[in-house]
Amino acid sequence: MNNETSREGILFVVSAPSGAGKTTLCRELIDSFSDLRQSISFATRQKRESEQDGIDYHFTDPETFQTMIAQQQLAEWAEVHGNLYGTSLETLNTAAGEGIDLLLDIDCQGAAQLKKNYQQGVFIFILPPDYTELERRLSSRGTDDKNVIQRRLKNAEQEIVQARWYDYLVINDDFQSAREKLIAIVTAERCRSRRTAHLLDKLTAKGDK
Amino acid sequence: MNNETSREGILFVVSAPSGAGKTTLCRELIDSFSDLRQSISFATRQKRESEQDGIDYHFTDPETFQTMIAQQQLAEWAEVHGNLYGTSLETLNTAAGEGIDLLLDIDCQGAAQLKKNYQQGVFIFILPPDYTELERRLSSRGTDDKNVIQRRLKNAEQEIVQARWYDYLVINDDFQSAREKLIAIVTAERCRSRRTAHLLDKLTAKGDK
Repeated sequence: MNNETSREGILFVVSAPSGAGKTTLCRELIDSFSDLRQSISFATRQKRESEQDGIDYHFTDPETFQTMIAQQQLAEWAEVHGNLYGTSLETLNTAAGEGIDLLLDIDCQGAAQLKKNYQQGVFIFILPPDYTELERRLSSRGTDDKNVIQRRLKNAEQEIVQARWYDYLVINDDFQSAREKLIAIVTAERCRSRRTAHLLDKLTAKGDK
Repeated sequence: MNNETSREGILFVVSAPSGAGKTTLCRELIDSFSDLRQSISFATRQKRESEQDGIDYHFTDPETFQTMIAQQQLAEWAEVHGNLYGTSLETLNTAAGEGIDLLLDIDCQGAAQLKKNYQQGVFIFILPPDYTELERRLSSRGTDDKNVIQRRLKNAEQEIVQARWYDYLVINDDFQSAREKLIAIVTAERCRSRRTAHLLDKLTAKGDK
């Protein structure tokens, strides 16, 4: 799919409690649109073996992160499970300048900060079907102990309350259906008249009649 | 696809200048969603041989139509190319009561009336790629003489100016692409948080924890 030219890039902001399937769904979304770019966050947490610096995150030490905060280089940042995560203004400005649509996979705190300055952004919340299923998914990962799972469940509860102010809610009860809904949201938002009005200018221009 | 339960039916209002491909695209949309119902307008124009009363339109005489206007039985009505077209309040109320999504294929004047009373409706405008193509499509039908084509082109020009207040613009330069965009708009609008918030109530209800 090709981006329609001459319009501002759209910010697609996706949040979800852990275990809702956000990471996999975001990857599917990136794979479905050649002209949708994943925004890479800065993170102070330990790099996992499967991850690559500059691809999964810009891994950085807490001191550098604090300097970025102090120098107002971040469009949003948040502390999640004891680690710092943030999106640099440079990432957003570069995409905007190039008219590129950007996908931000960030938590509720960060999304709420972005909502203030980027009201034209598209805010999507992915929900687990219910708490029982969420608990089952978190437990089946086998990577976290019981206390971590309980903390994540507690956080999920608080995050789901936040879901109300998002533009779209997508329930991940069936993976294919959730994937199709996300793809539909990107496709539909690109057709919104406030983003396509320049096409009308072309159609109503004297030269075209 | 199944409708998520316990929410109000959505009004999808589609307008376009004649020749933009609206009728075929609306039919495709109805075929794609088992739970999307076509709203059937009342019309005073002559029934064409290919058409069926009660399926394409409720064909009615001008006197009966005027009575419906006088008795405020119509949610919208308009005079188009010398004929009267309108949607009855009963059609809308029945669908709303049953939580059914309704597709209205109506002109700009009627859509503008609906916009006042049904702000939660989804207003979609289908555009031809350009005037040259629109003229070619109207001519290739072979059903209308030159004067009729010129009148339709003049009307198209005025209608396209109206497109600005619609929620979505879909350019029908490629039929499959336009079809996919319309399907995406229906799918995405069903995920909007103002329509799915009841799912959150379920998730955050005490009983579910």
